[in-house]
Amino acid sequence: MPGLTAYVGFFEICSPKTGEHVFVSAASDAVGQLVGQFAKLLGCHVVGSAGSREKFMYVTLEMAERVSNKQVILNNYVSGFPKESDMSMASNTIELKVPEDDSNAVLLKNLYLSCDPYMRPRMQKLEGSYVESFKPGSPISGYGVGKVLDSAHEGFKKGDLVWGFTGWEEYSLVTTPQSLFKIQHTDVPLSYYTGILGMPGMTAYAGFYEVCYPKAGEYVFVSAASGAVGQLVGQFAKLLGCYVVGSAGSKDKVDFLKNKFGFDDAFNYKEEEDLNAALKRYFPEGIDIYFENVGGKMLDAVLLNMRLRGRIAVCGMISQYNLDKPEGVCNVMNLIFKRIRMEGFLVSDYYHLYPKYLEMIIPYIKEGKVVYVEDTAEGLENAPAALVGLFSGQNFGKQVVAVSRE
Amino acid sequence: MPGLTAYVGFFEICSPKTGEHVFVSAASDAVGQLVGQFAKLLGCHVVGSAGSREKFMYVTLEMAERVSNKQVILNNYVSGFPKESDMSMASNTIELKVPEDDSNAVLLKNLYLSCDPYMRPRMQKLEGSYVESFKPGSPISGYGVGKVLDSAHEGFKKGDLVWGFTGWEEYSLVTTPQSLFKIQHTDVPLSYYTGILGMPGMTAYAGFYEVCYPKAGEYVFVSAASGAVGQLVGQFAKLLGCYVVGSAGSKDKVDFLKNKFGFDDAFNYKEEEDLNAALKRYFPEGIDIYFENVGGKMLDAVLLNMRLRGRIAVCGMISQYNLDKPEGVCNVMNLIFKRIRMEGFLVSDYYHLYPKYLEMIIPYIKEGKVVYVEDTAEGLENAPAALVGLFSGQNFGKQVVAVSRE
Repeated sequence: MPGLTAYVGFFEICSPKTGEHVFVSAASDAVGQLVGQFAKLLGCHVVGSAGSREKFMYVTLEMAERVSNKQVILNNYVSGFPKESDMSMASNTIELKVPEDDSNAVLLKNLYLSCDPYMRPRMQKLEGSYVESFKPGSPISGYGVGKVLDSAHEGFKKGDLVWGFTGWEEYSLVTTPQSLFKIQHTDVPLSYYTGILGMPGMTAYAGFYEVCYPKAGEYVFVSAASGAVGQLVGQFAKLLGCYVVGSAGSKDKVDFLKNKFGFDDAFNYKEEEDLNAALKRYFPEGIDIYFENVGGKMLDAVLLNMRLRGRIAVCGMISQYNLDKPEGVCNVMNLIFKRIRMEGFLVSDYYHLYPKYLEMIIPYIKEGKVVYVEDTAEGLENAPAALVGLFSGQNFGKQVVAVSRE
Repeated sequence: MPGLTAYVGFFEICSPKTGEHVFVSAASDAVGQLVGQFAKLLGCHVVGSAGSREKFMYVTLEMAERVSNKQVILNNYVSGFPKESDMSMASNTIELKVPEDDSNAVLLKNLYLSCDPYMRPRMQKLEGSYVESFKPGSPISGYGVGKVLDSAHEGFKKGDLVWGFTGWEEYSLVTTPQSLFKIQHTDVPLSYYTGILGMPGMTAYAGFYEVCYPKAGEYVFVSAASGAVGQLVGQFAKLLGCYVVGSAGSKDKVDFLKNKFGFDDAFNYKEEEDLNAALKRYFPEGIDIYFENVGGKMLDAVLLNMRLRGRIAVCGMISQYNLDKPEGVCNVMNLIFKRIRMEGFLVSDYYHLYPKYLEMIIPYIKEGKVVYVEDTAEGLENAPAALVGLFSGQNFGKQVVAVSRE
């Protein structure tokens, strides 16, 4: 009976419309609690009154605003190259308020989302990996920049700009805000916090300085050198006084490496039939440091061209992510012959260095000593294509999705 | 005429015999110089007289003893598995005295020779490797234990026992004695200086302690675990309080690992169809440290079973040395996922630690806390078979060749 009463009374008698302001008395009672929830589901602003603090807490409907929330959903686990059709656009509604029972959550309006190669493995079923698989049927997630709309966490307040882990949707309720960084410097493009000032920047910094132990004068090779991380590694190496060569997948990218990022030389790997011969041409003395972003055949060729006590920082292997079985690397014996250290690393182990990194990089950006190139897709609808494009090298620089510019 | 005079006079008139004492006057003249050399070639002791210091120096025949010297010669560069017929026995003569014009050389009588896996690559034409190829037609070389018969180097004197780089022959003139270590402790088997007290011992020590940074309680896997290096790594790991499992190629070797060397567990890799499954069985928690001696499929399986921040010391890859093209290693992406450090090393970079190592290992040997198993082939004639046997796992423990016991 209370259900029918609430239903008839609200929908039939009141003829309510989305966005209207609704007041319910005895709002924690049998009928009132249902009316309030019906009104929320319709997208109304609802305030309830009740006779005790407990009832008041229980109702918790006041002030909350429910809006529609576009999302990018993973349809199913992916094998091979991901396609746009592996994802779909969906929409739900979200309350722009953190739940009262979560003393930790932060509600974000997402401004920029980051397309990163490591997201490809998350599209499949992973076991024992450092990241979790995306959940088919749910929105995918990743790094992004957002604005705090509401916060139960003492570290964040409404209006704060943050970067960190968020969902591929317009609004995200972040329940693990320890993965969010508050943005202090806003006199640089906000989108930079998906790139040079975010995870890829820290990746380049940690991978180059902390894993490679570079020295002035050393020979440095960077693959995927025009990407989000590679373009920075090359510039860092130049600033230190290294000799730097990069590889990329088009003539335009190669030109950029040489003319915009200041690499000493660069080549288009797609035009090289024999990568070993190419590396011998660009590094007649051999390679001291290889910043590995691609894996596969390139790694095999690099191993043949390393110098004694060379270092390989293994940041990513984008050429391998879409293969059912990764290519075999045949020249690992060179690790012995040349006493090579090859080390995989994850940026998440180095975030304690983020303040130190900002101290270095912000002046470099302002003085124009380090430049950063982004490729921006406009609107969440274009996010799937942007992400998929990474794996065929469609992006020219760091791939960003602008969800909202405010 | 002087040639015929010397020939007829010495061989026809004197009827000389090997080992006889011969005096030649006017020994630097046309006839005398030839007689002296004929006598040396026959193996006589020859003293000459001449009329000036220059002539005296030129003659230099006095006192030198020339003896026959059996050698193991590499016939030709090898491809695939080496065979005994890739080597042959030869003999030349050698003067048991360092040449007067070399202020550095040391003349050794070889007592023990070491058969080591790294010698296989030296049997082929190498480019840019850390070791030089053997020279077809010449004796092969390697680590050994010898007795100094003569020395021009101030660091060594007649009667010293040494270990280091020498030739596969009865006597060797070592012209780079900086690669020789003087043996101080002679109350242990001398042959140990080809193994636990020589290069393999230092390899185990440096690779385990300096490259792996082991901690008590860690999970350690050693391949080729009953070999010259592996048996020591396992024992070092146990002494430190690690959990240690080894792999080897026969039931007897596996029994030895468990019962003689004190490994926690061991398995016969030849009986495992699925190495990944085997490792999961022996390391349900995963592997912190892998001491790599074999490469190929084992490495691929290990990569799947490493723990976060694991370390792989790449010491050797014996399974790959006989292949024209090494097997591909497919699971290198795990370096990233698990932040693995994989480092090739060469013992030659660590010899400065040898005194420190001796300080540790000599008491361990004397107290029986570390044991060492050798497989000894008797006589230089059996050296080729012993070396070849390494690559099919014929050896049971460290493979040594006893050339002479004094």
